[in-house]
Amino acid sequence: MSKKRADLLITNIGQLATPRGKKPARGEKMSNLRVIRDAAVAVKDGDLTAVGTGEKVLHDYTAPKELDAGGHLVTPGFVDPHTHIVFAGSREQEFEMRCQGASYKEIALAGGGILSTVLATREASEDEILDQSLPRLKRCLEFGTTTVEIKSGYGLDTATELKMLRVIDRLRKKTPLDVVSTFLGAHEVPPEYRSDRDGYVRLLIEQMIPAVAESGLAEFTDIFTEQHVFDVSQSRRILQAAKEAGFKLRLHADEIVSLGGAQLAAELQAVSADHLGAISARGIKALAESGTIAVLLPGTTFFINLESYAPATALKEAGVAIALSTDCNPGSSMTESMQIIQTLACLYLDLPPAEALSASTLNAACAIDRGDRVGTLEPGKQADLVIWDCADYRAIPYHYGVNLVRTVIKKGKVVVGGL
Amino acid sequence: MSKKRADLLITNIGQLATPRGKKPARGEKMSNLRVIRDAAVAVKDGDLTAVGTGEKVLHDYTAPKELDAGGHLVTPGFVDPHTHIVFAGSREQEFEMRCQGASYKEIALAGGGILSTVLATREASEDEILDQSLPRLKRCLEFGTTTVEIKSGYGLDTATELKMLRVIDRLRKKTPLDVVSTFLGAHEVPPEYRSDRDGYVRLLIEQMIPAVAESGLAEFTDIFTEQHVFDVSQSRRILQAAKEAGFKLRLHADEIVSLGGAQLAAELQAVSADHLGAISARGIKALAESGTIAVLLPGTTFFINLESYAPATALKEAGVAIALSTDCNPGSSMTESMQIIQTLACLYLDLPPAEALSASTLNAACAIDRGDRVGTLEPGKQADLVIWDCADYRAIPYHYGVNLVRTVIKKGKVVVGGL
Repeated sequence: MSKKRADLLITNIGQLATPRGKKPARGEKMSNLRVIRDAAVAVKDGDLTAVGTGEKVLHDYTAPKELDAGGHLVTPGFVDPHTHIVFAGSREQEFEMRCQGASYKEIALAGGGILSTVLATREASEDEILDQSLPRLKRCLEFGTTTVEIKSGYGLDTATELKMLRVIDRLRKKTPLDVVSTFLGAHEVPPEYRSDRDGYVRLLIEQMIPAVAESGLAEFTDIFTEQHVFDVSQSRRILQAAKEAGFKLRLHADEIVSLGGAQLAAELQAVSADHLGAISARGIKALAESGTIAVLLPGTTFFINLESYAPATALKEAGVAIALSTDCNPGSSMTESMQIIQTLACLYLDLPPAEALSASTLNAACAIDRGDRVGTLEPGKQADLVIWDCADYRAIPYHYGVNLVRTVIKKGKVVVGGL
Repeated sequence: MSKKRADLLITNIGQLATPRGKKPARGEKMSNLRVIRDAAVAVKDGDLTAVGTGEKVLHDYTAPKELDAGGHLVTPGFVDPHTHIVFAGSREQEFEMRCQGASYKEIALAGGGILSTVLATREASEDEILDQSLPRLKRCLEFGTTTVEIKSGYGLDTATELKMLRVIDRLRKKTPLDVVSTFLGAHEVPPEYRSDRDGYVRLLIEQMIPAVAESGLAEFTDIFTEQHVFDVSQSRRILQAAKEAGFKLRLHADEIVSLGGAQLAAELQAVSADHLGAISARGIKALAESGTIAVLLPGTTFFINLESYAPATALKEAGVAIALSTDCNPGSSMTESMQIIQTLACLYLDLPPAEALSASTLNAACAIDRGDRVGTLEPGKQADLVIWDCADYRAIPYHYGVNLVRTVIKKGKVVVGGL
């Protein structure tokens, strides 16, 4: 009997660990990984065509290229569903002020905070922003992320928001990662509208959303629904306009104050509600009913020293699907590594390693509407995977603060590490 | 006027940041870095022979080799003064149990805890332990550590302790790092002495310490002075015997319970007292008076989810010199990265970035009695330095969970990254 032909076989996988399916894993399924010892996979046209024991896959398939995984662990590449990785400038001086006890208000008065990044991003040319952002995206890949969402939101005027979205589009073409683009014009109220906040809401609805829709440069619209930023009523107006213009929706919801952002996410059928450090019991119930995914960002809680982490256990028990993300941004979470996020999720959200992995692969993919293509190692999905410098998936959160990636494969091609 | 000859010039250093001197920095001096913009250094015979502005150094020196630092940051290589990096086996399954709420007692009953590492290390051959430990030491170097202390302490019998110390000695010869060796036979009471704990103290004093002294394989003796391990009176007997046998001393002191380990460290003129999460006001005063260095291990507090970090501010205010370390070990701090330790020290010990850097270079060097050779970038010290992928030393703790090392130079030679 002749063997089927593939393009690439990855053999000698000591342990292959993956969630399953195209829909987000909830409840007990979140920890229910498929774990295969002595595994192999076959890749054809950039997709996985077989995943199983080495014996079975090698019996069925032949390929001109073979990659020996050296007995190491293989998982799906991470999906990072919430980043602000495109920006100009740097804010380590603000971090230093915080270590010395400065409050946010003092930092803002000293020219820090999000508006300092807005200023730098407005001033920088498109090429300068690209040059500063590209190394960050490469670092994502080096740390095992193969699909990433990137938001605009440091422009807060039509021209700069479009400039950021063009940078995101160029990054998509310049790196092997899959990049999902989100318009976040409603990240903050810009200085020139501080005395006319509703004027900025009108600008968003009447000018910015139509212009971004016209450009075709964003798939999602996001908003920072929070005290002193956009209240629930303003958020509803903006998001409804975005929905009518054809955008999928996501929200920064209930991060610090329980405003009801989660309920709004559910009401508008948003794909995800993110942060949720202060989500109410009613908010949890709403997300469970709507099927909106909770994207938790423990790196941010850690980095800005907040006292309480998002209530992951209550969300899980209510049946809400949880995803994890870096929230990579210059103010409140300066990291590209989904590995340190695994550690923080295990230690501070009480997720066991298997659940952290599901939350960072399948569920994260679903949180950006890519559950059909990435997030698991199954036939028919993209061959996006990481060969790790360890033998067991539980070592990823356990062995912290380092980079355990050995090789990254994107669409069946080695993009980090050697063959 | 003819120029002086060096072996290597490192030029185009955007920012050079270093503490100063050979003695530990205390109080305000801890943050008082020398910061030179547009700097260069000259290296001769593995030592620094000039450190200053590029203009000055290039005016005075010529060398057959030149390394362009690309406008990036240069600091001294990290010194990691407290590690248990030599061991066999792995304990990620225990980490998983902790995420699921298991107590230490449950973990110990399930075969976990330090004794599981003792068992694995006793069973493994010297070569096996070497093979498992070498990648960890290489990772230290890749993350910017150029000098490391390594303890025995997973043998708890004479033969295995000596086996571990031989592995440490072989690691010293196999890697470019400077390795300082510590005998920690008093890490725990082994299973075979659980009903005769004083018998183990006698074994340490009468057999193990003399045997290790005879071998010449350790420079320091360390002990775990803690409730249920070695009390202050047992610790004093063991450490006095070690001192008489010619060892320098260091202690695991007051980690969880305030037993008085810090006072004992001061009494015996130990070089360092380590952990100190539960140090008393009296203990702080004793360290300040004796000049014993406080080695703080925020990674451990983070990793085992303890509620309170060591009182760094009170120690600083009392005039105690603080050093930082990974505590790299398979149970309570599985990391080789001094970079994540910078972040944790800034966020949870309230050290500003400059103090964290001093604590991880000069003060860490003094904590292993190497302040005369490493820990600062000054003429006469070893040319151990890191070229960073950033422009400012404050970015090291700020940009967290990743690896910002670009190039590591040890004794004037490139050992990580390209020329």
